[in-house]
Amino acid sequence: MKATGIVVEYNPFHNGHLHHLQQSRLKTNSDIIIAVMSGDFLQRGEPALVDKWTRAKMAISAGVDLVIELPYAFATAQASDFAKGSIFLLDALKCDSFCFGSEEGSLEAFQHTYHLLSTKKEEYNTSISNFIKQGISYPKALNEAYKVISEDSSMSLVDLSKPNNILGYHYIEAAYQLNAAIRPETIHRVVANYHDEAKPSETIASATGIRKVLFNEMDLKSIKNFLPETSLSELKEWKNTFKTFGSWEIFWPSLRLIILRHSKEQLANYAEVTEGMENAIWNAAMKSNSFQEFMLQIKSKRFTWTRIQRMMTHIYTGFTWEQLKTIDVPTYIRPLAMNKNGQNYLQSIKKDLPLPLVSRVAAFKEINMLGLDMKAANLYYLGLQTDYAQKMIGSDYSITPIIQ
Amino acid sequence: MKATGIVVEYNPFHNGHLHHLQQSRLKTNSDIIIAVMSGDFLQRGEPALVDKWTRAKMAISAGVDLVIELPYAFATAQASDFAKGSIFLLDALKCDSFCFGSEEGSLEAFQHTYHLLSTKKEEYNTSISNFIKQGISYPKALNEAYKVISEDSSMSLVDLSKPNNILGYHYIEAAYQLNAAIRPETIHRVVANYHDEAKPSETIASATGIRKVLFNEMDLKSIKNFLPETSLSELKEWKNTFKTFGSWEIFWPSLRLIILRHSKEQLANYAEVTEGMENAIWNAAMKSNSFQEFMLQIKSKRFTWTRIQRMMTHIYTGFTWEQLKTIDVPTYIRPLAMNKNGQNYLQSIKKDLPLPLVSRVAAFKEINMLGLDMKAANLYYLGLQTDYAQKMIGSDYSITPIIQ
Repeated sequence: MKATGIVVEYNPFHNGHLHHLQQSRLKTNSDIIIAVMSGDFLQRGEPALVDKWTRAKMAISAGVDLVIELPYAFATAQASDFAKGSIFLLDALKCDSFCFGSEEGSLEAFQHTYHLLSTKKEEYNTSISNFIKQGISYPKALNEAYKVISEDSSMSLVDLSKPNNILGYHYIEAAYQLNAAIRPETIHRVVANYHDEAKPSETIASATGIRKVLFNEMDLKSIKNFLPETSLSELKEWKNTFKTFGSWEIFWPSLRLIILRHSKEQLANYAEVTEGMENAIWNAAMKSNSFQEFMLQIKSKRFTWTRIQRMMTHIYTGFTWEQLKTIDVPTYIRPLAMNKNGQNYLQSIKKDLPLPLVSRVAAFKEINMLGLDMKAANLYYLGLQTDYAQKMIGSDYSITPIIQ
Repeated sequence: MKATGIVVEYNPFHNGHLHHLQQSRLKTNSDIIIAVMSGDFLQRGEPALVDKWTRAKMAISAGVDLVIELPYAFATAQASDFAKGSIFLLDALKCDSFCFGSEEGSLEAFQHTYHLLSTKKEEYNTSISNFIKQGISYPKALNEAYKVISEDSSMSLVDLSKPNNILGYHYIEAAYQLNAAIRPETIHRVVANYHDEAKPSETIASATGIRKVLFNEMDLKSIKNFLPETSLSELKEWKNTFKTFGSWEIFWPSLRLIILRHSKEQLANYAEVTEGMENAIWNAAMKSNSFQEFMLQIKSKRFTWTRIQRMMTHIYTGFTWEQLKTIDVPTYIRPLAMNKNGQNYLQSIKKDLPLPLVSRVAAFKEINMLGLDMKAANLYYLGLQTDYAQKMIGSDYSITPIIQ
């Protein structure tokens, strides 16, 4: 069986994701689609709308064959580590290829870009440092340095100011650096811009746009054009039981409690908290009655919104610089959900897997990285604050993969 | 002006407290009554029903002239340190005497007891250790050892199985050990038992009994017989604005979040968490959807309920063994509320005070112990979880004493 991997968050699974899924299958002519998916906290540094189990069910209902959890330590990391963890897992799962959506759409441009930057690595890094010294954010510095480096190139190169191109670049980079057997593919992304508003007249909108509409209207009808029926019914069931959706705004009283329980100095121990940000974070938490208010007080040219949100994720879950240093590559494969095909595929490769296959966490308590996932799940449910969510504490420890 | 000190928690101020207040004034023939009062967390290791400002107002309305905050590090400590901090402050405030309620009622018995135990100190301590090794709680061991030591004494001694006698003993001990000029007095306590239920036919009940009725009925009418009108109206106003009362049950989702954010090993860093209790605490937090459920899982013969609650207070506020080690005596005097008499008295002794007088915290940020009080106040409001309580975060930093 030929398998293709995709890297997803599905927050929530929408028509754009469905398009990517179908195109990936067509382009690679695969029997099996395996999605590596973030858990309850996402790469943009925020809690997911609904838990990973519900998002995994949406994925299977829409045609993914197997959903694997991307461990917390990678799911909430900066793009290069997020990519490294994801590609490592898809390679370990014997995928023939991985296929990502990009604004670029041509694989050749990514390969040219990777070769250009790896041959001019030193020059590139020096240039990035210089731009950072001017007080701009890391992604902006990357892009400025890239402009300088690529100026004289005659090859077709990727525009690294686009968010999906950036991620795509990191996937390619990870595949090369891991010396992975897995082969890259890219397809053209149809959604214009990640941050675009969801327009009611259309059927495809970004997940960010969809969440914005959902939180404004707090009514699932307002987003029904943008999601497959199966996603919509999962969201409905979630809302009926959990009575809320995950967001930093909902988590704010809990996050604020955790911030103010620390001294400023202690906050600096958490991953990604650098350059005196601990002071700004603590002071803003004292004054802010909402997450929005809080973020507006600490945002700066120096850090992207996403980077600051990742600091918040690590403060919330207690993930330290020290722990971050110990992270290299994923050390287990944890399936969240699968269909019959996914199950057969997993059965067929099981004996050749280079990592332990975790179908019930209780049997694997000695894996530290897995402990982080459990903790993240517990803290996710606690942040939701509703009675039903409280009852879910500890459930991640004994649950087994969903088979649909 | 002659001043008498009392040590109080007023959670809430009730008719029994009024009796104690009036009797103390009569017995000592004082012009001024100064109350040293716990802040937002109490000696039994729990959040107060209403904040310290509201409780201080109740005290002044009922006739106390001056209310001083007992710093967090003493208010939530075991009896001997609680007593030490309180007596130290009352002595620093130039009180002529302090007057405590006891089941015993005779000062002589306390003095005999203190002298007996201090002359037989070594024997007493060895005996306590031996009883503890048999697996009983510290207060029980104390009492058993005391029985052995006092067996042959012909003097009238205090019954140290009674909670107010135990506290009284520690006040006397503190006064001796601090070499304080302040003179002890005791009056007979009228409430039969600290843990008694509040009976509707009576007008005096213990604070514990009153809180129990209040939380069962959630109606202030149910407790009106037991409180002065002034206390009742403060409680009404609090309920109208804060929409809730403080208790571990209300704080449970927040406490649970904090426990589960830690590893078991990390929990052992917090003050009073000993002998593997970190494991029991973490495991029980995973399973328990209420504080009651939680406590029933971890209670043991080894520790009193109160002692376990103090562990919870320190875990909640992040107060460590390391910090506890640095605590000796209070390092400032912070008035919470006063009437005209109290204000005049404070004015008259101001220049002779051995400690800084803190009327606005913002001017004293370098005092660590005071930082703990601020933090405790913030975390108290956060634990209440209501919108109004969220708005109180940081208020303790800039507020000045209430003058009534």
